Amino acid sequence: ARINIPEIIYGEYKTRQQTIEVADALLQRHPRVIVSRSPFNNELEAHYRDRYPVINADLVLVVGDLPEPKGSVLVISAGAADHPVVDECAITLRSIGVQPLVFEDRGIAHPTRVLDAVREGISKDASAVVVVAGMEGALAPFVASLVPLPVIGVPTSVGYGFRAKEAALTSMLASCAPNLTVVNIDGGIRGAVVSGLIARNREK
Amino acid sequence: ARINIPEIIYGEYKTRQQTIEVADALLQRHPRVIVSRSPFNNELEAHYRDRYPVINADLVLVVGDLPEPKGSVLVISAGAADHPVVDECAITLRSIGVQPLVFEDRGIAHPTRVLDAVREGISKDASAVVVVAGMEGALAPFVASLVPLPVIGVPTSVGYGFRAKEAALTSMLASCAPNLTVVNIDGGIRGAVVSGLIARNREK
Amino acid sequence: ARINIPEIIYGEYKTRQQTIEVADALLQRHPRVIVSRSPFNNELEAHYRDRYPVINADLVLVVGDLPEPKGSVLVISAGAADHPVVDECAITLRSIGVQPLVFEDRGIAHPTRVLDAVREGISKDASAVVVVAGMEGALAPFVASLVPLPVIGVPTSVGYGFRAKEAALTSMLASCAPNLTVVNIDGGIRGAVVSGLIARNREK
Amino acid sequence: ARINIPEIIYGEYKTRQQTIEVADALLQRHPRVIVSRSPFNNELEAHYRDRYPVINADLVLVVGDLPEPKGSVLVISAGAADHPVVDECAITLRSIGVQPLVFEDRGIAHPTRVLDAVREGISKDASAVVVVAGMEGALAPFVASLVPLPVIGVPTSVGYGFRAKEAALTSMLASCAPNLTVVNIDGGIRGAVVSGLIARNREK
Amino acid sequence: ARINIPEIIYGEYKTRQQTIEVADALLQRHPRVIVSRSPFNNELEAHYRDRYPVINADLVLVVGDLPEPKGSVLVISAGAADHPVVDECAITLRSIGVQPLVFEDRGIAHPTRVLDAVREGISKDASAVVVVAGMEGALAPFVASLVPLPVIGVPTSVGYGFRAKEAALTSMLASCAPNLTVVNIDGGIRGAVVSGLIARNREK
Amino acid sequence: ARINIPEIIYGEYKTRQQTIEVADALLQRHPRVIVSRSPFNNELEAHYRDRYPVINADLVLVVGDLPEPKGSVLVISAGAADHPVVDECAITLRSIGVQPLVFEDRGIAHPTRVLDAVREGISKDASAVVVVAGMEGALAPFVASLVPLPVIGVPTSVGYGFRAKEAALTSMLASCAPNLTVVNIDGGIRGAVVSGLIARNREK
Amino acid sequence: ARINIPEIIYGEYKTRQQTIEVADALLQRHPRVIVSRSPFNNELEAHYRDRYPVINADLVLVVGDLPEPKGSVLVISAGAADHPVVDECAITLRSIGVQPLVFEDRGIAHPTRVLDAVREGISKDASAVVVVAGMEGALAPFVASLVPLPVIGVPTSVGYGFRAKEAALTSMLASCAPNLTVVNIDGGIRGAVVSGLIARNREK
Amino acid sequence: ARINIPEIIYGEYKTRQQTIEVADALLQRHPRVIVSRSPFNNELEAHYRDRYPVINADLVLVVGDLPEPKGSVLVISAGAADHPVVDECAITLRSIGVQPLVFEDRGIAHPTRVLDAVREGISKDASAVVVVAGMEGALAPFVASLVPLPVIGVPTSVGYGFRAKEAALTSMLASCAPNLTVVNIDGGIRGAVVSGLIARNREK
Ligand SMILES: Nc1ncnc2c1ncn2[C@@H]1O[C@H](COP(=O)(O)O)[C@@H](O)[C@H]1O
Ligand SMILES: Nc1ncnc2c1ncn2[C@@H]1O[C@H](COP(=O)(O)O)[C@@H](O)[C@H]1O
Ligand SMILES: Nc1ncnc2c1ncn2[C@@H]1O[C@H](COP(=O)(O)O)[C@@H](O)[C@H]1O
Ligand SMILES: Nc1ncnc2c1ncn2[C@@H]1O[C@H](COP(=O)(O)O)[C@@H](O)[C@H]1O
Ligand SMILES: [Mg+2]
Ligand SMILES: [Mg+2]
Ligand SMILES: [Mg+2]
Ligand SMILES: [Mg+2]
Ligand SMILES: [Mg+2]
Ligand SMILES: [Mg+2]
Ligand SMILES: [Mg+2]
Ligand SMILES: [Mg+2]
Repeated sequence: ARINIPEIIYGEYKTRQQTIEVADALLQRHPRVIVSRSPFNNELEAHYRDRYPVINADLVLVVGDLPEPKGSVLVISAGAADHPVVDECAITLRSIGVQPLVFEDRGIAHPTRVLDAVREGISKDASAVVVVAGMEGALAPFVASLVPLPVIGVPTSVGYGFRAKEAALTSMLASCAPNLTVVNIDGGIRGAVVSGLIARNREK
Repeated sequence: ARINIPEIIYGEYKTRQQTIEVADALLQRHPRVIVSRSPFNNELEAHYRDRYPVINADLVLVVGDLPEPKGSVLVISAGAADHPVVDECAITLRSIGVQPLVFEDRGIAHPTRVLDAVREGISKDASAVVVVAGMEGALAPFVASLVPLPVIGVPTSVGYGFRAKEAALTSMLASCAPNLTVVNIDGGIRGAVVSGLIARNREK
Repeated sequence: ARINIPEIIYGEYKTRQQTIEVADALLQRHPRVIVSRSPFNNELEAHYRDRYPVINADLVLVVGDLPEPKGSVLVISAGAADHPVVDECAITLRSIGVQPLVFEDRGIAHPTRVLDAVREGISKDASAVVVVAGMEGALAPFVASLVPLPVIGVPTSVGYGFRAKEAALTSMLASCAPNLTVVNIDGGIRGAVVSGLIARNREK
Repeated sequence: ARINIPEIIYGEYKTRQQTIEVADALLQRHPRVIVSRSPFNNELEAHYRDRYPVINADLVLVVGDLPEPKGSVLVISAGAADHPVVDECAITLRSIGVQPLVFEDRGIAHPTRVLDAVREGISKDASAVVVVAGMEGALAPFVASLVPLPVIGVPTSVGYGFRAKEAALTSMLASCAPNLTVVNIDGGIRGAVVSGLIARNREK
Repeated sequence: ARINIPEIIYGEYKTRQQTIEVADALLQRHPRVIVSRSPFNNELEAHYRDRYPVINADLVLVVGDLPEPKGSVLVISAGAADHPVVDECAITLRSIGVQPLVFEDRGIAHPTRVLDAVREGISKDASAVVVVAGMEGALAPFVASLVPLPVIGVPTSVGYGFRAKEAALTSMLASCAPNLTVVNIDGGIRGAVVSGLIARNREK
Repeated sequence: ARINIPEIIYGEYKTRQQTIEVADALLQRHPRVIVSRSPFNNELEAHYRDRYPVINADLVLVVGDLPEPKGSVLVISAGAADHPVVDECAITLRSIGVQPLVFEDRGIAHPTRVLDAVREGISKDASAVVVVAGMEGALAPFVASLVPLPVIGVPTSVGYGFRAKEAALTSMLASCAPNLTVVNIDGGIRGAVVSGLIARNREK
Repeated sequence: ARINIPEIIYGEYKTRQQTIEVADALLQRHPRVIVSRSPFNNELEAHYRDRYPVINADLVLVVGDLPEPKGSVLVISAGAADHPVVDECAITLRSIGVQPLVFEDRGIAHPTRVLDAVREGISKDASAVVVVAGMEGALAPFVASLVPLPVIGVPTSVGYGFRAKEAALTSMLASCAPNLTVVNIDGGIRGAVVSGLIARNREK
Repeated sequence: ARINIPEIIYGEYKTRQQTIEVADALLQRHPRVIVSRSPFNNELEAHYRDRYPVINADLVLVVGDLPEPKGSVLVISAGAADHPVVDECAITLRSIGVQPLVFEDRGIAHPTRVLDAVREGISKDASAVVVVAGMEGALAPFVASLVPLPVIGVPTSVGYGFRAKEAALTSMLASCAPNLTVVNIDGGIRGAVVSGLIARNREK
């Protein structure tokens, strides 16, 4: 059966009016809609909250009821600064009907905290891992070496100095961990959709 | 259960002697070993062929019996020049115990040929898609828009001119297809391991 | 005969006063003038609207009567975010005396919508195609493979993450579509002038 | 009517055998075939010369009769080093049925020599101009400012030092000449196909 | 004899107070001081204008009497947007005691206007040429091919799109004009000091 | 007291004859000389071996007696491919009079093997750590988080694909480990000299 | 004994509330805490100043008593614009218990002023040198050639024009001074921690 | 009077035959010809040596009598590896009729050796300085701070590791020395022509 990905509206360059028009149209045909990177999240929330449940986060907004989760994905991040992307990823997973198991602030400076998160994810039978990390992004290959699962690295633009916004992407691509794959910088939604499809896949 | 990925030896900078030593050690404990990017594939084949089945391709060599495949992955490539990476990916999939469904020379210049490949993959219930493409890499977002499956883009270094070796990677990362994830340039092995884990995952 | 391209003033770094001086001088000798990327479009409109028809868009402003269109150009864009560049291109085409046939929001995620636009352009005997697209820019090679016409790719700076503003340019240059040529990022005016010359050319 | 572009085989990564197979298949259905960047031009010439006329240049090889030219394109290059790309462009134009008017070694160090070439092209009613130039590529915007025609810049990889192979592309893209469009570095074939379509276009 | 270059204070990151302290100290020992890229030009002018003549431009401010000019330098710019850098260059030349011969808005789109400027510079026996140009910077190699003098290219950050701020630098470095040398982007002061030393040199 | 660093000859671009002349001159005044990156190591060994002890490795050659080591430095590398740079570093350390404690093939794929190496280094009271790693270079921040010592990262050019030769450098610079500092790619000698000075420093 | 580095909180992306929570927790267990790059330094100072001594600088804030310094590090900078990074470095050194010997505005334009600083550092028996420099960063290799000590280059983002923010890093990495090592751009804290560990090291 | 620069043939991409044809033509009208970067220097020497004096160096070849030198230029290089570019520069200066005063192997590691060279150049009344340096290129700003003359930096491609071939160019452009100007990487000829014009200039 065709897996149900809710429609995603790329809101970054749309006006408030354009966004509402597209969202209204989609909500005629779909139980929920995801709006990504809109500058009008608060206006959208005000517009929809009487008629629908709304989740309003920094990078993403969901309008409509969330489905019952089937399957789970482990989401680990390196530091507090990666939080908005973690949130975008976790909320999108829930909109797809997959349970995110979230562990934040697990940089490689504290290897035992990383191991704890990985152990818990495996014990709960997660189907895939999303690693959200900025700066040098070393958390992704480290986690990948610890789990026999597909790992989706989501590099973030957190950092300063040389190639500040590209360092994590560069090192995740260059890694020799064979089970590590990568999405665009700050691409929390893509991390969620790919890992969510993997988790849903197994439940079929 | 722990998914069985055969051990992969990164052969690019190893001497013939070093490679054989590591491979011998691994074959004591594992039914098969993958050697990646070794300049000594012919010498390795000669060394092992009396005792083991050997697959000797451009970028990869496998020593040992292949397992019975469970599950399948659709592998689509854009042009003839991408063949060595397709081969690396398909052989690694088979070593992991997953059936590759390979369709080559399906560039977006011929959309109906792309659609044929996608249709066949879906009809055979593939669990994931690997798209191998160089030049502008437009095949990956196009395929991703057609399938409700995780798509792993493997950009190749095929092309000439501006950012010749990086153009496909750049466009795959920048794509707005939410189910598309990417590995390093010419990373056929990583495309195989990630998609193979997804396929095996479902069979558990 | 010499083809009539209206004079184009590059307004980005000029003061309001400098721009008006140059425009006044040109309007002595020409029926219309195009001002590109001026931060003073509203002031310019106020200044000229009593004496001339004025078209005031985000990236371009035209002062003077538009000529009767001869010939047509198909203009296709990938998403709503590309609108300002589409507008710049279409308005410039009209100032040159060529009819733009505009189809927006035709990303490759919806191939049939792309085909519809292409079919209509061909049925109306367009002389060239302008493809306006950001992100991974895959729309340009896809359209180029469908039409036996010169295609001018106008990459836009729409997108985020890795090489956000350069990804579409990179992939359009790297494409193997032999009838695809490219202008600078967000270069709607150049897309219009080149395609307009092609269309006018045929009418001679 | 559909404009006849001969089929182009991208030969760079194909084996001799692969290339001949594709070419044979195409020659069943087409009067001629273009092979681009093959390392086997001499072998291909030997293979085909008994049955077909063959043009064998550095970057391109044409098998089959050339059509009668209709329309013409002015091709100007900066220096002797750009010759292989000029040749690729001129031969492809002839295969498409368009007359190339070629002027080589017309760098901006000698402005009067540039003017002579431009004047001759205009007097012969060329429909478009291809400018082939390496190093700083300044010839392209200079020529574009002199002709009321579409100009296709073909930057070459000639040069040394800083961004040696990208300098001409960079400056052609950044130019403010509105009638200048650009193809990939060393893209003689694309320069020919786009300009050839423009010329053929007018003859319809 | 030691050539008199006035002291230059790099004001970009200094506070108002720091800048005045350094300037006061220098004015004890020197007849004039140049302040470059200070965000406090108006405050500095107010501070000094009762005691010294002050020249206050966008990128440079001079406090103190100007010397009698000896020798001259031709300064040519491509477009109106380059004016602040032209101004910085011309004012610095005058502070060094050299006469700038300034011709603005002489892009290669109007070759005869370039020739006029060059002719006038040569007739006035200028010792060197400074070419200030942004975008593709083609004016610099064009002027260099016309004069038997050292030419100092000052690339500006004017432009948009691909490598917007680096295109002029890239093409000036890549040029094959042997008498063309280059300074940093927007480096009007360096253009003035080098050309001024050349002009003063001859007067010794 | 002035710490004795042996003189280092940069041999990469010198002729055999030039190298011998400089080395001879230095050996008049110094007990030993280091030659770095000479293409003539075998010829140099033949030339000197009758009169001096010679160590001849891939990237470095030492002529003269080694001093008695005082103090020690821990040298850890990620993979077999990094060996030539490890060797260059260890041999240089010995020439400076510092004991290298070398552990190779300790990638983060095997965290316990990393911990073993770190533990041994600390138990032997090493004064500093050199981490030699290519690919994504994640070993350096991982080790830095484990030791209360200065860590010098030596990124290597091992790897393939995107920014193949720069990925390790990029991630080491971007790391948030505050005790991690970095040298140029493949800079084994600089890693040795800096860490050796630290170790010698403590012995004073 | 384990060397006491105070805990460093990376404040750049944290909220005021998050930062205070982490700092409070650390101050339970540590005598002092360093907050780096927080946008809330003034709020933090107000929050803590009644209970702790607070040092509040541009890039760093220290809460808690400073330890008695043991050992010293020479800190030299090129120009006034580098001051915030110098400050960050010197304050961090003092928090680690090491005496910074600071000499600012010592660019290579005044070699004797550089020599004075170096001489004073050596006479005071500094254990290491930190060189803070932007623009072309030439001060670092120059200082490194003068001292028999480890030199840590801290490139700053001061400068304008070509690779404005990366030029100093690039030249420090490329330098042939064997005792020069480098940290990330504007990495004053890393310069302090590495040099502080070296100085503390000797005192053990 | 028009300054006599001998004609320079850019030989890098020309065939032996093409080069001889151009050179023969030029020698009809000029007393000498310079051939730059030809791969056929030995063949050219053999061809011309019976009829003309020939200077045959790595990067340049001069055919014809050298003029009597008037004026002089100081040429300083950093290391032995820069020799071919120094040679190209010195020979071109002599062909232009200017005396080069050459000092090689004067890196900033030995500041007193730099000072000696500068002193001698000034005492001989050189009109300009050419600094040839690779790696981090710090010699150029150092020399520029010592002389009241125009300094032309010729960055070389000597070096390894990060931005190996671009580091010297980057730092020369970023330098704050106001009398320093720059040519392309390995541009010995341009360094010679610009400095030679300055020297000849004064002699007029
Ligand atoms: N072609 C390849 N690309 C990326 N990583 C690889 C490749 N081949 C092997 N590896 C990884 O490299 C590591 C083995 O390195 P080594 O111990 O040097 O053989 C393992 O983690 C492999 O998974
Ligand atoms: N030199 C070239 N540059 C860019 N594209 C080319 C070139 N030669 C052939 N192509 C295109 O590559 C495709 C053929 O690829 P293939 O099927 O691998 O032969 C066609 O779309 C051709 O138009
Ligand atoms: N090594 C070189 N670097 C840059 N420009 C050069 C060089 N050698 C010759 N040229 C220039 O290249 C042009 C000659 O090109 P060509 O007509 O192809 O010989 C003249 O303008 C020369 O000044
Ligand atoms: N706009 C500028 N570009 C480059 N260097 C400059 C500029 N302004 C001043 N300088 C140089 O910067 C140094 C002065 O720096 P400071 O001591 O910080 O004022 C002197 O060497 C000046 O020649
Ligand atoms: Mg943390
Ligand atoms: Mg094909
Ligand atoms: Mg859409
Ligand atoms: Mg020529
Ligand atoms: Mg103008
Ligand atoms: Mg290993
Ligand atoms: Mg200063
Ligand atoms: Mg030396």
